[in-house]
Amino acid sequence: MRFGVLGTGMVGNALATKLVSMGHEVMMGSRTDENEQGRTWAEQNGPLGRTGTFAQSAAFGEVLLNCTQGAFTLDVLRTLDRGDLSGKVLIDVANPLDMSHGMPATLTICNTDSLGESIQREFPEAKVVKALNTCNCQVMVDPGRVPGEHDLFICGNDGKAKETVKSLLRDFGWKSIIDLGDITNARGTELLMPLWMRLWALFGTPDFNYKIVRN
Amino acid sequence: MRFGVLGTGMVGNALATKLVSMGHEVMMGSRTDENEQGRTWAEQNGPLGRTGTFAQSAAFGEVLLNCTQGAFTLDVLRTLDRGDLSGKVLIDVANPLDMSHGMPATLTICNTDSLGESIQREFPEAKVVKALNTCNCQVMVDPGRVPGEHDLFICGNDGKAKETVKSLLRDFGWKSIIDLGDITNARGTELLMPLWMRLWALFGTPDFNYKIVRN
Repeated sequence: MRFGVLGTGMVGNALATKLVSMGHEVMMGSRTDENEQGRTWAEQNGPLGRTGTFAQSAAFGEVLLNCTQGAFTLDVLRTLDRGDLSGKVLIDVANPLDMSHGMPATLTICNTDSLGESIQREFPEAKVVKALNTCNCQVMVDPGRVPGEHDLFICGNDGKAKETVKSLLRDFGWKSIIDLGDITNARGTELLMPLWMRLWALFGTPDFNYKIVRN
Repeated sequence: MRFGVLGTGMVGNALATKLVSMGHEVMMGSRTDENEQGRTWAEQNGPLGRTGTFAQSAAFGEVLLNCTQGAFTLDVLRTLDRGDLSGKVLIDVANPLDMSHGMPATLTICNTDSLGESIQREFPEAKVVKALNTCNCQVMVDPGRVPGEHDLFICGNDGKAKETVKSLLRDFGWKSIIDLGDITNARGTELLMPLWMRLWALFGTPDFNYKIVRN
C-alpha cells in the first residue's frame, strides 16, 4: 500500500521507517522537498521510501498519517489539494501541544473540542481516525518495548476506515485496541498527553503506556 | 482520627462510610445541617458518623476530604472559617465537571490550571493533596473491585501530607500509588476524567481503572 506521512519529525520518521520495513511505499512530506530530515530519511529508506512536499505526499498516499505538530496541523492541511484527501483514511497521530511557554506543554485545543474533531469538521472529505497519539513514537511502532498488556485507543466516524487502521495497528504488533466510538472521543485521548508528559519526566523513560484494567 | 467529609453525594457517602467502617470519626458536611442525605447517612453510621454544615465539618476534621462537585468547590471553601483549614491535610477528590451542557461533561478548569492548584493557591494554609479523582467512588474505597494491578495517582506540595494520604490509601487497599510531584500535576489527573466518562459509557460499568505499564 502507498502511505503519505505528513511530517518529518521523530513521529513521522518512526512511522515511515516502520511502514517501509513492512514493504509499503512511503512518501514523507514536509513544507519543502528540500527538507533535510526528509532527504536523509529517503536516502536511507529508498527505493520504497521517498520524500516530497506535504502536497506531493498527500497526493501519493492511499492512506495518510498526520505526524505534523498538532498546533500547526490545520495550517498544513489547508495547503493541500482537497481532492487528495477525498475518501482517504487520515490517521491523526498528532497532539495539539503548545510548547511556547516551556514544559510541561499545554494544549492549543481541548475540553470542548479536539484536534481530531477539528480536522474532521474542516475536512469532511477525509476519513479521520485518531490513533497512536497516546504513546511515544518508538512504542507506536513496537508496542513490545512495553512489556505485558497495554492498550491503544482509536476513534473515528467511519467504521471501515477504523477497520483499515486496526489492521495496520495489528501489523505493528498492537494486541489490545480500544475503539472508543466517533471522532469526538479524540477529546479524551488528547487529554492523556499532559499526564503522559509528567510520567515521562517522573520515570525518565518514554517506554510506558496506559492500560485500562477491568473485570 | 477525625475526618471532615465535605459533600454528601455518592463520593462523600462512599468515603465517609469507609472511614467509619475503619473506626474513624467522621462528620459529613453540606450546605445545611438539615441535608437529608447527610441525616440519613448519620442515622445509619452513628455514633462514629455524624452530619453538620460544611463549616462544622471543616472544624471537626483533623483531615478534610473535598467531595463537593468540583465546579462549586471554591465557593464552598470560601464559606469556611479559614482557621479550620490551617495546617490541615485537605484531600481533593473532586473533578471540575460541567454537566450543564449534558454528557459527556466538560471541565470548568483545565489545561493551564486545575482545581487542585486553584484550591492550594487560594487556601495556602491548607495542605492540598489531589487523590482518588481518577476512579469511581466504589473503586476508591475498595480497589479490589478491579482485579489485578492498577494505579492511583496523588500529588501535592507537602511531603508529610502526602505520606498521611498514602497511609490512608493503603488502608483502603491501594497497592500502587504513583506520587506525581507537586500540586500542578493535578492538571494531568483531572484531565483523565473525559476519557474515563467515555470508557464508562463504552464498558457499561464504572469498575475499571488506569494502570501505567512500564519496564
